[in-house]
Amino acid sequence: MPTTQTTLTGHSIIAGESVTGTGGTVNGFDPATNETLEPAYSLIDAAQLATATAAAAAEEAFDSFSSLDPETHAAFLEKIADNIEAVGEELVERAMAETGLPAARLNGERGRTTGQLRLFASVVRQGDHRGVRIDPAQPDRQPMPRADIRQRKVPVGPVAVFGASNFPLAFSTAGGDTASALAAGCPVVFKAHNSHPGTSEIVGHAIADAVRDCGLHPGVFSLIYGPGASIGQALVSDPAIKAVGFTGSRSGGTALVATAAARPEPIPVYAEMSSINPVFFFDGALKGDLDALAAAYVGSVTGSSGQLCTAPGLVFVPAGETGDAFAAAVNRAMAPSAGQTMLTRGIAESWTAGVDSLGKQDGVELVARGQDGATQNAPAPAVFGTDVPTFLSNNVLHEEIFGAASLMVRYTSTDDLLAAAKRLEGQLTATLHMTDEDQATVAPLLPVLERKAGRILANGWPTGVEVGHAMVHGGPFPATSDTRTTSVGTLAIERFLRPVAYQNIPDALLPAPLQQSNPWQLNRRIDGTIERAGE
Amino acid sequence: MPTTQTTLTGHSIIAGESVTGTGGTVNGFDPATNETLEPAYSLIDAAQLATATAAAAAEEAFDSFSSLDPETHAAFLEKIADNIEAVGEELVERAMAETGLPAARLNGERGRTTGQLRLFASVVRQGDHRGVRIDPAQPDRQPMPRADIRQRKVPVGPVAVFGASNFPLAFSTAGGDTASALAAGCPVVFKAHNSHPGTSEIVGHAIADAVRDCGLHPGVFSLIYGPGASIGQALVSDPAIKAVGFTGSRSGGTALVATAAARPEPIPVYAEMSSINPVFFFDGALKGDLDALAAAYVGSVTGSSGQLCTAPGLVFVPAGETGDAFAAAVNRAMAPSAGQTMLTRGIAESWTAGVDSLGKQDGVELVARGQDGATQNAPAPAVFGTDVPTFLSNNVLHEEIFGAASLMVRYTSTDDLLAAAKRLEGQLTATLHMTDEDQATVAPLLPVLERKAGRILANGWPTGVEVGHAMVHGGPFPATSDTRTTSVGTLAIERFLRPVAYQNIPDALLPAPLQQSNPWQLNRRIDGTIERAGE
Repeated sequence: MPTTQTTLTGHSIIAGESVTGTGGTVNGFDPATNETLEPAYSLIDAAQLATATAAAAAEEAFDSFSSLDPETHAAFLEKIADNIEAVGEELVERAMAETGLPAARLNGERGRTTGQLRLFASVVRQGDHRGVRIDPAQPDRQPMPRADIRQRKVPVGPVAVFGASNFPLAFSTAGGDTASALAAGCPVVFKAHNSHPGTSEIVGHAIADAVRDCGLHPGVFSLIYGPGASIGQALVSDPAIKAVGFTGSRSGGTALVATAAARPEPIPVYAEMSSINPVFFFDGALKGDLDALAAAYVGSVTGSSGQLCTAPGLVFVPAGETGDAFAAAVNRAMAPSAGQTMLTRGIAESWTAGVDSLGKQDGVELVARGQDGATQNAPAPAVFGTDVPTFLSNNVLHEEIFGAASLMVRYTSTDDLLAAAKRLEGQLTATLHMTDEDQATVAPLLPVLERKAGRILANGWPTGVEVGHAMVHGGPFPATSDTRTTSVGTLAIERFLRPVAYQNIPDALLPAPLQQSNPWQLNRRIDGTIERAGE
Repeated sequence: MPTTQTTLTGHSIIAGESVTGTGGTVNGFDPATNETLEPAYSLIDAAQLATATAAAAAEEAFDSFSSLDPETHAAFLEKIADNIEAVGEELVERAMAETGLPAARLNGERGRTTGQLRLFASVVRQGDHRGVRIDPAQPDRQPMPRADIRQRKVPVGPVAVFGASNFPLAFSTAGGDTASALAAGCPVVFKAHNSHPGTSEIVGHAIADAVRDCGLHPGVFSLIYGPGASIGQALVSDPAIKAVGFTGSRSGGTALVATAAARPEPIPVYAEMSSINPVFFFDGALKGDLDALAAAYVGSVTGSSGQLCTAPGLVFVPAGETGDAFAAAVNRAMAPSAGQTMLTRGIAESWTAGVDSLGKQDGVELVARGQDGATQNAPAPAVFGTDVPTFLSNNVLHEEIFGAASLMVRYTSTDDLLAAAKRLEGQLTATLHMTDEDQATVAPLLPVLERKAGRILANGWPTGVEVGHAMVHGGPFPATSDTRTTSVGTLAIERFLRPVAYQNIPDALLPAPLQQSNPWQLNRRIDGTIERAGE
């Protein structure tokens, strides 16, 4: 088996072909050293995109790809995973250079990326996402006979996916959005994030090679480099594109949502954007080992330099002696903590500006500060403190500061906590640190948090998102643009499907999932009740 | 049991209380006689809505209503159905006077309305819509233990529903949107259509009485009369409202979508809007009884005066002798067909303008015309004819004319048909009239139609939408604003749900659907595989 190439070309991959962009170039950049990385990447601008064939090729690939048999389809996803693993260490090395993230984190992220491709392969083989429902004909029903009606879910069409800066593998070229769209049967046009172009190219070749090796239409996957926002708007405006996956900033996500809504045919945008992930400490939890708890908090705030969607940017801690003791423990835990390289110089500058602004707000004070890191763009992490009335009165305290910073809000009563929770914007997560004795206090908070967050967890930290069947990585706006779904876990496949009903269609013309003989051995909902294959 | 009142008050019902609007009045209107109906209905305008408590009461009702046990919840839906039936003939008589629709149709519609309430009651008892997924803890997993993660779907929050003009019962006060939202656990604020205010009030009392009789929070349901578009915009802008159901015009639907998207927190809008429901005749089908086929076509075009979302506004018929013979049969079948009263004078005028415009388009000619009806607002139904090149070149021929009109497009080849199908906008339905000999011709058309329509049917007519588990009454824009769902059938409940994950939450704090003992006996997806209750 030829291994996927790791020699970087600096060009887009459109339907299996290398395409040179004519809209300028961008280079990777090592944030740990402030050094430019080679090669330069040629950019496709909006004008060139209009004549490039990425979306048109995806449209051409749709019919054959969307009707693949489960085994061929699943094997394709597994082949992508195999190809990524076959690249070996050069992938992690390039990602380290482009992002400043440490090897252990990137090795874990690679495992997560290949793991979720294989998980989606199992979903494709299992087939419940096809949503088969059959209401059999009732020719003798009075006063009117009932027709045979069968429903299945079909892929929506070609999907545009935008890579995230903070996960160069797991939320990027072959990340969760790409994996779930391909698993749904949708060709993908992927727009690489310009902060890790080389990493994107290596993975892009791994996917394009899998397309070729599996004998699929080359339009199933394209990788485009382009100048930031303008190419994104052009891609989302393309009539062939039928849905969008995005992980990034609130401003970037809402701009794509607006573009998609303004199309002659509006399309859904799944944008995962902004969350400060509140953590609530209750009295019982603070009777434990405060130093261990503080160390875990600091670890969650500073891991990956705080550049995780689920980093705990906000903690609620009781006022009074216990809370004071916890704050002191946080101060001790943070003091020796060294800043880690941030993803880009721009992100580091933006973090510094956000922290400076937060520290100057009335009623906000510094609780703990770490050390500057030894590399470039590695500012000292920080925890600030305030009280509930200040938090309720100042919107600045509700904004995400992307990076290793957190705000500790001291509360004096359960009413205080409820008021603060009700005032929160939508969140990816909400975390409870509690013991059995806190249950009566927590109970009235839960219905509030259910309306605010996609995931509620106890006695852990929101960072470290499990990829499984029950995970929700989503939540009300602005955590995401669409609260009805998740971008992590197998439910994510639903984002790229829509139901179609077939009424009295001859069996020979029905798609395989709906044929009477059930050739794909799918579970089916018959007259409203699930019947498992083989029963 | 006291019967729901049928004496009309002319006022809104907000959280169980009669509220007099201060924004003018509107009267029902009998389109068959052009006579005004009493009483006058007082209108709540946007200014009054801001101080009225409908959305706030719905918000207040949310916590208790959204966590009802299945039996109480289902019994509530059944109580609404019982109350509607208990009203008796006064409901149908008022609806006849306000809409001009015949008694048989309205009796059928009442049965459909109560039937779908009871169907949703069975869905609530069965519980699969709660989407329970459990990934059990794996404390010994390497390199990291896995937490216990459980997912369920929760109601999105209060829902605004807009009544349709053309279904005063089944898509109105207690129609499919209201029934599916209430079944999901969402309180409903219903905006009545001003063309049938009395019908709306009778049903509104039936619901409000059920709320009271079942001991629910009165904010679970409100019924508002208001001045058309402005009150709709105000209601959709209310921060307490979290989703919108709408059936009506393309302009009305897209305006609500724009308002919802412009909110600080955007919300989903499920608007069912515009469809011309193409019907394809193949050679084999035209070897049958042409007069019977033509009569069925004319019946589907003219039933309910053509004012059905799925009325066949477009048919494709082969050029040449067979097609000529079918057109002649349509002419014969249509000639004696008398116009039926349309819903309102405005709708009749709009239909007449649309038909006049269509008849004047280059390359369009009249194929068949019926007779004017004996009542007011009952214009003669019409079928026009053209060819594929004309259809491809003129957007006017793609627009819905709401009412009894249809366009017959003659095609000369399969390529002709494919080109026309690819040019179609999104549709609720696509219909095939075919025999076994046509299968090879139909096969390449099916993938095109799957991307254009929510339902594909053979050898029947798209009007008459079955309410069941497999039905899809939806489709790509402009058929609806959200192709991922349906407004008819049990899948409609999914529109008003969102997933939430619970990680390591103590069993005592988990909501009933997720508790380890499975007290509601729900089917659950364990590690990705469905396990049925009791297994």
